[in-house]
Amino acid sequence: ARPRVGYFYTGKTSEQSERIGNLYVKDYYSCPVVASDTTSVYDAIVTMFTEDVGTIFIVDANNALAGVVSRKDMLRASIGKQELSSLPVTIIMTRMPNITYCYLDDKLVDVGKKLIEREIDSLPVVKEEQDGFKVIGRVTKTNITKALVNLSNE
Amino acid sequence: ARPRVGYFYTGKTSEQSERIGNLYVKDYYSCPVVASDTTSVYDAIVTMFTEDVGTIFIVDANNALAGVVSRKDMLRASIGKQELSSLPVTIIMTRMPNITYCYLDDKLVDVGKKLIEREIDSLPVVKEEQDGFKVIGRVTKTNITKALVNLSNE
Repeated sequence: ARPRVGYFYTGKTSEQSERIGNLYVKDYYSCPVVASDTTSVYDAIVTMFTEDVGTIFIVDANNALAGVVSRKDMLRASIGKQELSSLPVTIIMTRMPNITYCYLDDKLVDVGKKLIEREIDSLPVVKEEQDGFKVIGRVTKTNITKALVNLSNE
Repeated sequence: ARPRVGYFYTGKTSEQSERIGNLYVKDYYSCPVVASDTTSVYDAIVTMFTEDVGTIFIVDANNALAGVVSRKDMLRASIGKQELSSLPVTIIMTRMPNITYCYLDDKLVDVGKKLIEREIDSLPVVKEEQDGFKVIGRVTKTNITKALVNLSNE
């Protein structure tokens, strides 16, 4: 913890809530793990293990965001009767427009609120382009936990 | 954000890191979901869905902590060749002494550090008793995300 020189009282909010409100997605996001919408559930599960992530983003032929698959979706599918290698991932994914996403310039705390409200583990960070949303990152509860740990060290 | 009256400068750490350092497990933990060590992997997966949690704590006949099973452990087992309803959960769980746990009086930020270092989603909150650790709660990255959101509203 480094020493601080003093405080400036704004009369409106605490210094702490201001500091948290100044954390942005762009400073805390991770690399996204994406797979094509032609992938099978089995291959998506393998990708989940090899990349060691809890969520995979599915993109279409234009490389635009088409869906999100979580470890929970995978587990539900894998205890079903279907053969996972012939089951398309598009069958079990959450699709647009039901995907919650965020932008690089969003506040980290607003992403935290969405993760809690929607009961999900991760949001894609997107950039709008003509043929859809390009996935440029992900924000997970791990990123937010790291932010809290970092703040405690300041 | 409610107005604050002023700040007291300690000369050592920022107000913010002090506030985060004053968050304790006892103020942010959730109910644990436990299952017996005689449970099958299949039944543990069903419990995971019905209770909507990502981690289940396994207890022995004395009701003491014996293991931890995550959604990732379940998914790995479910893409294997075994019949899940005849596979004991004890085969796939992480066992003592390899379980990372915490106490009610631990600081939340120290739990956050452990979750990140060990790359896990959740810690059991335990109480030491003569015949082992009793599981009295759980702390997840969701609890920590909620703590950050709460702090930003102060």
